[in-house]
Amino acid sequence: MSNFWNEYPDIKNELEIVKNIMKENVKSAHKDMEKALLDLIDSGGKMIRPAFVLLSGRFGEFDGDKLYSLAAIVEMLHMATLVHDDIVDDARLRRGSPTIQSKYGKDYAVFMGDFLFAKCFMLLSNNTSMESIKGVAKVVSKICLGEIEQFSSRFTPNLSVKKYLKRIGAKTAALFSLSCYIGASESGLDEKQCKSLAKVGYYIGMAFQIIDDILDYNGNQGSVGKPIGNDLKQGIFTLPLIYALRRDNNTLSKILCKNDYSEEDIKKVVEITRKSNGIEEARRLAKKYTDKAFKQISALPDNESRKIFMDVAKRLLNREY
Amino acid sequence: MSNFWNEYPDIKNELEIVKNIMKENVKSAHKDMEKALLDLIDSGGKMIRPAFVLLSGRFGEFDGDKLYSLAAIVEMLHMATLVHDDIVDDARLRRGSPTIQSKYGKDYAVFMGDFLFAKCFMLLSNNTSMESIKGVAKVVSKICLGEIEQFSSRFTPNLSVKKYLKRIGAKTAALFSLSCYIGASESGLDEKQCKSLAKVGYYIGMAFQIIDDILDYNGNQGSVGKPIGNDLKQGIFTLPLIYALRRDNNTLSKILCKNDYSEEDIKKVVEITRKSNGIEEARRLAKKYTDKAFKQISALPDNESRKIFMDVAKRLLNREY
Repeated sequence: MSNFWNEYPDIKNELEIVKNIMKENVKSAHKDMEKALLDLIDSGGKMIRPAFVLLSGRFGEFDGDKLYSLAAIVEMLHMATLVHDDIVDDARLRRGSPTIQSKYGKDYAVFMGDFLFAKCFMLLSNNTSMESIKGVAKVVSKICLGEIEQFSSRFTPNLSVKKYLKRIGAKTAALFSLSCYIGASESGLDEKQCKSLAKVGYYIGMAFQIIDDILDYNGNQGSVGKPIGNDLKQGIFTLPLIYALRRDNNTLSKILCKNDYSEEDIKKVVEITRKSNGIEEARRLAKKYTDKAFKQISALPDNESRKIFMDVAKRLLNREY
Repeated sequence: MSNFWNEYPDIKNELEIVKNIMKENVKSAHKDMEKALLDLIDSGGKMIRPAFVLLSGRFGEFDGDKLYSLAAIVEMLHMATLVHDDIVDDARLRRGSPTIQSKYGKDYAVFMGDFLFAKCFMLLSNNTSMESIKGVAKVVSKICLGEIEQFSSRFTPNLSVKKYLKRIGAKTAALFSLSCYIGASESGLDEKQCKSLAKVGYYIGMAFQIIDDILDYNGNQGSVGKPIGNDLKQGIFTLPLIYALRRDNNTLSKILCKNDYSEEDIKKVVEITRKSNGIEEARRLAKKYTDKAFKQISALPDNESRKIFMDVAKRLLNREY
């Protein structure tokens, strides 16, 4: 696991339990696949989504067995989308390691992602409410729609901020939000409290994705774990660029209207985006979402989880990986 | 829809209702995707799995709303596996029409399959028992494992009949079997009756896949809807060839030990397989499974569904498409 939870040894220990549940559930007669999935589990993701399930559960009657399993499901779901996502992105690296599709081929990756999805729903049908199953299925369909929208809008530089926000709401914030919601609802909180926590997850998720997109422009490949300009190369335009395009001096538009970008093009677009304050502006919006999260968190009952939520929201805003 | 159910207008009408539920459930803001999925629904599959849900339900207390929805789920699940399957097979044609991946690209097809999976579980969480959800999730994971095993065994000509049967049990018969099982269990039949019907589905499913594999050797591209020797080309060895290899005169092994087959190779392998009775022998095994199905069906209560099951088992054995 990454060092993200080092300051919170309780959460860190609980996330180890969650990881073991995940490992238990990817066991299979196909040792190659099992190994690939175990490697992915061990590859050091921050495990924010499962942590949000646990943190939200602490506001209610925390049932360890139930919540650890739910947390594992949410992370496996995220892994499934990563595996399929990497096929579409043709990504070679994820968290600094070769992706499943680059190591085993796209074909393998298709079924491996499906296998993870199936396992999630098997686990869900063990001891979760029908409502949570419905919630998870809805979020999976939302994520797919977000990804399909992103895929079919490639190389079209006229993306609006509004459309961008809708997209990241679907492909990222929805699962953050759901993690908080089911953690809360499976711990007996009432609908109003569940919705408050869902909002916390949503706002943090929005800020998280904006920062992720910023890191595609100004990150360090070593710490981010994937090459800079990766999205751009595939014709995916994100917030820093959308802002930069508003002040376009025509150089940007001229490059972006192509259907394929050279390394030189990527370098230039990244440079112009940086110079035209696209990154600062994007960071300001991420900050706004984080402030909204703070406001929601402040209204929660005062406990250790609330403190951690505050801290995590702040650190995710200022992260460099 | 295909003409398969023409002799049974009641079932045919009910399958139209099922189709409309499917169409209702693939509606989406992404009109391209919606169109692709509607085309797939309309492309004339036999809809055997949903028909098995309905036929099995007739042995119990048939609840139309519930069963039509279940039947739609089972067929959408099948569609999702087809869409992902075609990515792996790199298939250009399915049911005589271009596949989604050949028309829209592999990337699109990945999320389209995922979207269908998600929709299935959303529908399942509406009015199905937790047991059925678990059953569906288990079958999806089985199908994935079957497909992964098949994929990772490509170009290894020493496949045993036993391993082949295990594979088709997972990738095909399991869903036939589940269709009967949930149709029965959601209509209030007791466990013993549900299991009997599950066996009917299983045996018919095994025979179905063997015949499918035979058609890859002696079918007519026009009626089968995909090119002959398609599996073989990808290094997938099926029953007719496994039998032929037992009588191998070395010519077969010599061709098959390559990692890539020319059109000439495919032609030759198909020819030798035909001449060495591989097809007849495979058909004998399909007949055996059909006989087992007959035996199970005979033990069911005497009603219209039983008659149809008998007839369908016979026709699927003798089909040419």
